[in-house]
Amino acid sequence: MSQSAPPNTTTLNTRDISGLVKAGDKRAIGRVISWVENGDARTRSVLKDLKPAAAGTRVIGLTGAPGAGKSTVTSALVRAFRARGNRVAVLAVDPTSPFTGGALLGDRVRMQEHATDDGVFIRSMGSRGQLGGLAAAAPQAIRVLQAVGYEVVLVETVGVGQAEVEIASAADSTVVLVVPGMGDSIQAAKAGVLEVADVLVVNKADRPDTPATLRDLRAMVSLARSEWKPPIVPTIATTGEGTDDLVEALDKHDAWLEASGERARRRLARARDEVTALVFGMLAKRLAVPDELAARVADGQSDPADAAEELLATAVIFKDLSERVRAAPGPRTT
Amino acid sequence: MSQSAPPNTTTLNTRDISGLVKAGDKRAIGRVISWVENGDARTRSVLKDLKPAAAGTRVIGLTGAPGAGKSTVTSALVRAFRARGNRVAVLAVDPTSPFTGGALLGDRVRMQEHATDDGVFIRSMGSRGQLGGLAAAAPQAIRVLQAVGYEVVLVETVGVGQAEVEIASAADSTVVLVVPGMGDSIQAAKAGVLEVADVLVVNKADRPDTPATLRDLRAMVSLARSEWKPPIVPTIATTGEGTDDLVEALDKHDAWLEASGERARRRLARARDEVTALVFGMLAKRLAVPDELAARVADGQSDPADAAEELLATAVIFKDLSERVRAAPGPRTT
Repeated sequence: MSQSAPPNTTTLNTRDISGLVKAGDKRAIGRVISWVENGDARTRSVLKDLKPAAAGTRVIGLTGAPGAGKSTVTSALVRAFRARGNRVAVLAVDPTSPFTGGALLGDRVRMQEHATDDGVFIRSMGSRGQLGGLAAAAPQAIRVLQAVGYEVVLVETVGVGQAEVEIASAADSTVVLVVPGMGDSIQAAKAGVLEVADVLVVNKADRPDTPATLRDLRAMVSLARSEWKPPIVPTIATTGEGTDDLVEALDKHDAWLEASGERARRRLARARDEVTALVFGMLAKRLAVPDELAARVADGQSDPADAAEELLATAVIFKDLSERVRAAPGPRTT
Repeated sequence: MSQSAPPNTTTLNTRDISGLVKAGDKRAIGRVISWVENGDARTRSVLKDLKPAAAGTRVIGLTGAPGAGKSTVTSALVRAFRARGNRVAVLAVDPTSPFTGGALLGDRVRMQEHATDDGVFIRSMGSRGQLGGLAAAAPQAIRVLQAVGYEVVLVETVGVGQAEVEIASAADSTVVLVVPGMGDSIQAAKAGVLEVADVLVVNKADRPDTPATLRDLRAMVSLARSEWKPPIVPTIATTGEGTDDLVEALDKHDAWLEASGERARRRLARARDEVTALVFGMLAKRLAVPDELAARVADGQSDPADAAEELLATAVIFKDLSERVRAAPGPRTT
């Protein structure tokens, strides 16, 4: 509206955008994340232009059932890290509806209190056309935010399913939120999210069922065989109560990641997952099931596994992967 | 314990098992579903031995957030369909934890009232080694249950994420459960599940927030552009209240599926998804990311997309798919 408004980023080329992103321009960063979402080919050249992520950047994932208060806890964490002087980015990942192809709700309704803070970047994200889906898109967006120099990246996911667990596991530390009396902790255990928790938060801890939920979670955690036992932190995110304890728990986990060598292991596993998601995305285009084949399976004329083998046999020839690995540079035993 | 117990199915060969499955032996059916879960190669030969699924079998999916009462609603539906004289199978799909590799909770704690009913088969299911994960395993298990002659197959999923939406969409009719005041209906909308709903159930409809939730859902449904507008059914599954309305809504949807041609369209889309999941599962084995490549990506030496292309280029040669499709039998335009 005003004449001094910055130039519309749609008119800029890839190199200009890379420059703006490096300079921390929020509009440019937002545009690149849109490219990531849409599977735009320009994402790749921008990612190449950016420096690798700073080692000190912390990626914190938050997941839990709808209604657990993830946005409120995220907002409380933004406040806490801002109070330390950290620049903070929030990526709110909405699984894309298979029907509308769009993420519901947007940046506007989320965490409005931080909207005018220059040290905070907030973005919601779906996956419209990204090869490999959100499992590939989320790490790319995180990479952009890290390269820009956000010291803390909070990744909030909406659901509690397998896809959300995967996205949360792109983080260094994963916070799983549970609410007392809301389907209870057994339900969270069933959804498989407790096992990815580095820190467990019992939010809305002023509810009467809180002691029972804390007891259940402690019993489950005591059974975990992992070296790191997730601390259980009660919070009332709407009032900010418990936020300091949550930050302390996250700091402890961060120190453990470094001391145990787990950070390096996780980074390797994540790199592997990211490449796999991209490979599958690239293959999806080439391996679309022809109508005729789908019809034969639907009619019961072909067995699905036979159809899959037929498609692979006619579309793909494998080279010997072992040759490639042997040819790669690295220490030799001769 | 008793001497008249049936022979342990572990000692039987594939052909014996196929015979027992065809005869409706529950232990044998359970064993084949274990094979499906574990990605056992014997699954395929049993599936070949079974007749194609009867056209009249109804597959009904139930999904919703943890704590929404899916098991209770499922149990109420089992009672209702049994009262009609239908044989009913229940498949409770638990997303497998990436850490323990096992589905938590089992058949034992689910729907005990039906445990002694010969016309009811209940099985919980995870995905331990299945190629293509649950997206491939669930349809195979459904295929087994249909072939055996269960007239109604209820597929209950635990989470509300993308994976659960995919599994639910293997059904002819998908029921999405919402609970009043539990994160509310906006949260369900955010998780993208409302759009896959053929019938919306507001369970625990004795809660005070029920009218508001019903109003919100009606507003959302009125915006849907689809030909079928999902009916909204309030239930109190613990008392059985609303179950008759739910069955009526499901019957209406079933009639619409047939009349509109939507059933055929869905079957084709499902066949395509099933083949795709199997193809990707078969490829996963061949396209494992080598350690050296993952390390280069983790260290920032290689871009993930470059690494993915490198892996594909060295592992795979594509043939021309179009030739294959042209060679397939079918109507010609010449």
